[in-house]
Amino acid sequence: MGAVTEADRAPKQDRSRVTRQRLLEAAVACLAEHGWAGSTVSVVAERAGVSRGAAQHHFRTREELFTAAVEYVAEERSAALRGLFPTAPRGGRGTTPRGGRGTTPRGGRRAAGADRTAVVAALVDLYTGPLFRAALQLWVAASNEEQLSPRVAELEARVGRETHRIAVELLGADERGPGVRETVQGLLDMARGLGLANLLTDDGARRERVVAQWGRLVDEALG
Amino acid sequence: MGAVTEADRAPKQDRSRVTRQRLLEAAVACLAEHGWAGSTVSVVAERAGVSRGAAQHHFRTREELFTAAVEYVAEERSAALRGLFPTAPRGGRGTTPRGGRGTTPRGGRRAAGADRTAVVAALVDLYTGPLFRAALQLWVAASNEEQLSPRVAELEARVGRETHRIAVELLGADERGPGVRETVQGLLDMARGLGLANLLTDDGARRERVVAQWGRLVDEALG
Repeated sequence: MGAVTEADRAPKQDRSRVTRQRLLEAAVACLAEHGWAGSTVSVVAERAGVSRGAAQHHFRTREELFTAAVEYVAEERSAALRGLFPTAPRGGRGTTPRGGRGTTPRGGRRAAGADRTAVVAALVDLYTGPLFRAALQLWVAASNEEQLSPRVAELEARVGRETHRIAVELLGADERGPGVRETVQGLLDMARGLGLANLLTDDGARRERVVAQWGRLVDEALG
Repeated sequence: MGAVTEADRAPKQDRSRVTRQRLLEAAVACLAEHGWAGSTVSVVAERAGVSRGAAQHHFRTREELFTAAVEYVAEERSAALRGLFPTAPRGGRGTTPRGGRGTTPRGGRRAAGADRTAVVAALVDLYTGPLFRAALQLWVAASNEEQLSPRVAELEARVGRETHRIAVELLGADERGPGVRETVQGLLDMARGLGLANLLTDDGARRERVVAQWGRLVDEALG
């Protein structure tokens, strides 16, 4: 009696994982909608339909909850981004041949150009949804709160490196070439700036034209 | 007796102007350092060394004070930016000959390239100082507060148009050319993104390399 069997443990772990995930998703939605000042553990727990005690079992502090939330969703988005382009990596280091259709170099470059514009658009999309709004709220709150700042800076560096790695891979960029690394970095900075421009007004029409033009410029620069 | 002479009025107007200016500068510093939540009219008045009553004589509401402050400093920065390049506009519509040194077109383009990289660097600098931090705090606060949102969106659109106009002029860009407008817009989006990247950590070294590369890309794209 009293012994916990394997069968008991498994569903409990599942429930715990589901609860954790619900809390993380509620935290991001809350941060995007109400900002840092309006986002407490209690508010998030209520939104997730979880008791405050259960929430605190998963996350001891508000800082822990919100950085974990932004990290979790960033990882989900990275996975989704890779999923959009299942055949990548395509170029750069030549690890994946492009179907061997025997196209001329000129034709090959054209196809790569079309692909790259789609990749640029998808990268920019990362910065215009609720995750970016939530991350922005967290960054700005961290810039005013010493307790939050080192943790968010570290998270931002980690997410930034991962996004850069994905961008290089999907664009088929060879970072050994001069200026290639900075071209990709600048592109991600532009994506972040476009996200910011979208914060107060729907900037979609302008953004589409900017993405089309810079998709072309980045494609030319990467060769 | 009791009549206010011209001599009395002039210094009073001067004092009023100085008080207004001190309030605006204190408001921007306050917003950059403490964020929207920590920035009230009282806090700003104290920082400016002005009575709360005097502050409210100039600005009826908190919203009015902070949007006026960000606008005022943005105008100052625009003026300073134009001052950095007194010989502009240089290219594009050909309104200002470039010294008539009889350079070859190739040599002329090289010189323009060097100029443009300096212009790109100066444009990016607009987004990395206390004004950008203050503006960012205001944008994020506005995204959560309906009362503030339309006013800040209108301000942002106005400042954005003005910055775009200055950028086109200093870069000597001819917006009649295909993609030229979007090239400049994307550059300003990148500058905004670089400002955001600088919020939590000193991003200066990376930024310098990105600016050098994107300066080249923009110069080539503008021809």
